[in-house]
Amino acid sequence: MKMTKFEIEPIGIVHSCFSEKFGIPRQPGLVHSSVAELELLPPWNRQELVAGLSEFTHIWVHFVFHKTIEAGWRESIRPPGLGGKKRVGVFASRSPHRPNHMGMSVVRLRGIRASKGKVFLQLSGIDLLDGTPVVDIKPYVAYSDSIPEASSSYAGSFFPVRVRLRGDVLSFCEKYQDESGRDLAELIREVLAQDPRPVSQRGKRDVFGVLLWQVNVRFRVVLEEGEEIFEVFSCVNL
Amino acid sequence: MKMTKFEIEPIGIVHSCFSEKFGIPRQPGLVHSSVAELELLPPWNRQELVAGLSEFTHIWVHFVFHKTIEAGWRESIRPPGLGGKKRVGVFASRSPHRPNHMGMSVVRLRGIRASKGKVFLQLSGIDLLDGTPVVDIKPYVAYSDSIPEASSSYAGSFFPVRVRLRGDVLSFCEKYQDESGRDLAELIREVLAQDPRPVSQRGKRDVFGVLLWQVNVRFRVVLEEGEEIFEVFSCVNL
Repeated sequence: MKMTKFEIEPIGIVHSCFSEKFGIPRQPGLVHSSVAELELLPPWNRQELVAGLSEFTHIWVHFVFHKTIEAGWRESIRPPGLGGKKRVGVFASRSPHRPNHMGMSVVRLRGIRASKGKVFLQLSGIDLLDGTPVVDIKPYVAYSDSIPEASSSYAGSFFPVRVRLRGDVLSFCEKYQDESGRDLAELIREVLAQDPRPVSQRGKRDVFGVLLWQVNVRFRVVLEEGEEIFEVFSCVNL
Repeated sequence: MKMTKFEIEPIGIVHSCFSEKFGIPRQPGLVHSSVAELELLPPWNRQELVAGLSEFTHIWVHFVFHKTIEAGWRESIRPPGLGGKKRVGVFASRSPHRPNHMGMSVVRLRGIRASKGKVFLQLSGIDLLDGTPVVDIKPYVAYSDSIPEASSSYAGSFFPVRVRLRGDVLSFCEKYQDESGRDLAELIREVLAQDPRPVSQRGKRDVFGVLLWQVNVRFRVVLEEGEEIFEVFSCVNL
């Protein structure tokens, strides 16, 4: 049996603090200080279409992993939760490298803002790349979507890494917050605490860079009393 | 800003007890005895692609509301939870009449069956129409997806209706179960208890029919001591 293909069209686009793939949390809801605005695109940029949505604290965002389409899909994946060694089938993972490059994230809905004919949903706890095309928005319905007793196998182990911001970095963050209203220091702490390094790069004492908004955040792994610490030593607004 | 369209392709098809739209629960997980098999379509009909999935008790099924595409989308919806009177925007609802006709359901994964080069995921607690094209499968990850404290506004109120199966209907169901292994009586009870009638038809003492598998189940609304009861008076295997 062969079925017809379907065409889907973006109804919105994400403007997010995550300017590149590196540093994006592996699931939504992990980095509370991450924020984004979801801009509704014409002809869907009308408040009537989201009327009633603000009565929900959380929404589902359906999107396209647009940056992995060209790379195609993979039959099997090594989930970070399994230490990057064991393989599972692509449909047993949430990897972006899937046959249809579709993703879904449940995020907090902070508010809805309308300005100059545009409509923006204000989101937090996101794991969405800047520029992501959104194809659907649905309310989170707890009585149906929330299954606390669901067994999730290997997914879910998470041991935060200690993060230290150098004095001049803290000064940069304070100034940045004064100018933009964004709590960059907290965002850096939460993003790095989850260890954004690929599993293959763990154990290395390298320097890494992550782009949050337009700030290039550089950190290195230092060893203190046998414990790995991420020390942020540079922030540059590009 | 205008973005490109995307093409998505079915990776599976649902074989379900719900042979028509009428009678389908308004959310998954409400009718535990509802079952379906999700058949993976070529070239995705390979067990490697779902290896590891059986470690999860629940999965997300992403599908296309293929039977509502022709009817297009609606700007606003009257959710049953609001008594069918108040309108909300389409993105504040889970209505199938959406710009991109995409749906998602979290269902129980009972098992994976391979037979004659085909691969089937055995599901229960479904709300999926027979023949539904599936575009993605993802594991349910409780630590991220389960948000019991999420406020869901009007969605969630549900008062079961009492259902009575006439004696000859019960006999039919017993015989049907002997032959097919399907607990039809329980399925009828659970499906009808949720009151499948459109809100506009409530209060009417009409006769209704619902097609479960290939069984035409007919019931009428009877009033007993001021309480509406659904009496199932006929079952015919078409």
